[in-house]
Amino acid sequence: MIKTVLIGFGNVGSHLARAFEASSEIDLIQIYNRTYLDEANQREVQANFITDLKLLKKAEVYVVAVKDDCISDLINSLPSQNAIVAHTSGSVQLLETQHRDAVFYPLQTFSKNKALDYSNIPFCLEAKHPDTYAVIEKMAKSISTKVHAITTLQRQQLHLSAVFVCNFVNHLYAIGEDICLKHQIPFEILDALIDETAQKIKTLSPTHAQTGPALRNDQKTIQRHLSQLEETNYKVLYQQLTNSIALKHGKKL
Amino acid sequence: MIKTVLIGFGNVGSHLARAFEASSEIDLIQIYNRTYLDEANQREVQANFITDLKLLKKAEVYVVAVKDDCISDLINSLPSQNAIVAHTSGSVQLLETQHRDAVFYPLQTFSKNKALDYSNIPFCLEAKHPDTYAVIEKMAKSISTKVHAITTLQRQQLHLSAVFVCNFVNHLYAIGEDICLKHQIPFEILDALIDETAQKIKTLSPTHAQTGPALRNDQKTIQRHLSQLEETNYKVLYQQLTNSIALKHGKKL
Repeated sequence: MIKTVLIGFGNVGSHLARAFEASSEIDLIQIYNRTYLDEANQREVQANFITDLKLLKKAEVYVVAVKDDCISDLINSLPSQNAIVAHTSGSVQLLETQHRDAVFYPLQTFSKNKALDYSNIPFCLEAKHPDTYAVIEKMAKSISTKVHAITTLQRQQLHLSAVFVCNFVNHLYAIGEDICLKHQIPFEILDALIDETAQKIKTLSPTHAQTGPALRNDQKTIQRHLSQLEETNYKVLYQQLTNSIALKHGKKL
Repeated sequence: MIKTVLIGFGNVGSHLARAFEASSEIDLIQIYNRTYLDEANQREVQANFITDLKLLKKAEVYVVAVKDDCISDLINSLPSQNAIVAHTSGSVQLLETQHRDAVFYPLQTFSKNKALDYSNIPFCLEAKHPDTYAVIEKMAKSISTKVHAITTLQRQQLHLSAVFVCNFVNHLYAIGEDICLKHQIPFEILDALIDETAQKIKTLSPTHAQTGPALRNDQKTIQRHLSQLEETNYKVLYQQLTNSIALKHGKKL
C-alpha cells in the first residue's frame, strides 16, 4: 500500500480522506490541518490528526489540499526526502520544487457533509516523471474509474469550464429559486426540468440542445420576462445571457 | 375515457401525443398539424393526423400545443361546442373565450426525438370552473404523479424561472463545451460535476450550495480566468455572473 499523508482537511481534503481510507491501495497514515478539529469534524475518518507540521510522518506521498495561495509556501516548507508531493488545485501549475512534484486534481464540487460516489469522480493527474505519474495513477485508479492525464494548461481551462457549468449554473438555480419563493411556488417543481437539462447534454451537444425564447428570438416573451424581473442585477443577466445565446446561434436581436 | 384532440405536433405536442396514448384515461382520437407530416414523423403515434381544421372531430377536450403567438387566433377559430380547450403555454394567460378555457402546461424541456419519463413531469393546471379543472386534472394525473394548480401569474414566473434553470443553464454548458473543445479536453470529463451540481440542490438550497472563486472573492483566480477567455462575450458574462454572485452573498468585489 502507498503510505500517504493528507495535508488540509477542508471541503476537498475531508472527501479525499474518506476516499483514501476506502481504497485498498492507499494507507492514509496522518492528516494535517492548520487548526484543531473537534471530534465531530473528524468523524468517519480513522487517521490521526496533527496541527503541527513538525510532527509530519515520513510517507511516500503527501497530498496537499489547501487554498491555492498557500500551496507553494506549504510545499516548500516540507522536509526534502524524495517524496511525491501532489497538490489538488484546478488552477495552480505543476510546481518545480525539491520534491517529486505532481498534481492530483479531483474534478467535483465538494460540500463537507454531502456524501459522494468517488468512483465516478474524474481525477486529472500530472507529473513530470513517469515513475511519479505511475504512483499517483495507481492511487487515483484505486478510487475512481475516471483517471485522465491532463496538462497544466488543460487543467486551468477545465477549471474555467467548471466555473461555468457548476458555480455559475448554481447561481442560475439560485435565481430560479428566488423567483419561485417570491411568488409562493415550491422550487421543487423545477426539479425534473433541472435534471432533464443536465441529462440531455449526455446524448446531445448543448449547442444543439438549446431551446427557449432567446434561441427563437421571441421578443415578446423576452420583453415580458424583463418586465417581470424586479432586481436590476437579474435583468442585466437575463439580457446578457439572451444576447449571448443569440450571438452563438447567429440570431440578430 | 376522455375523448381528446391534440392540436399541434411540435416538440411539446409530439411528446403529449405519446403520453396521451399511454394513458388509460385519455382517448386521443385525432391530431391536427398545420403541415403534412410524413410517416417517419408520425411514428410511435396511433391517432389519425389531419392538416385541415375543418376536419376536426368532436371531442371533450382540445389540447392546443402551438406557438404562443398563434394560440389565441387558433382557439377563437375552433367551433363552439362547449368543449374544454386547454393551451400548453408557460406564458399565455388563461383565455376567456366561447369555450371552457383551461391551461395544461407540462414543465419540461422537450426535444422531439428524446424519450422522457412522463410520470415525473410536473403538470401546471389552471381553469376558471371547477368542473373543467376536474377533467384536466384527471388527464394530468393519469400521466404524471406531479400535478399542481398554478395561477397565470405564478405560471409566468415559473416560466421565467425555467428560462434561468434550463435555457440559460444549457447555454453555460455550451460555453463549458466550447472551452473544452478549444483545448482538446473531452467535455465528458465535466459530466459528474454537472450531475452533482444538479443533484446537490435537491437537499441544499442553491444559495447555500454556492462555491467557487466569486463566492470566495478570489480575485487572483477571477482575473486569470478573465484573461484565459478569448471571446469578449464570454468575458462579459463571466464578469456579470461573478458580480451577481458577490452581490447575492454580500461580498464586495
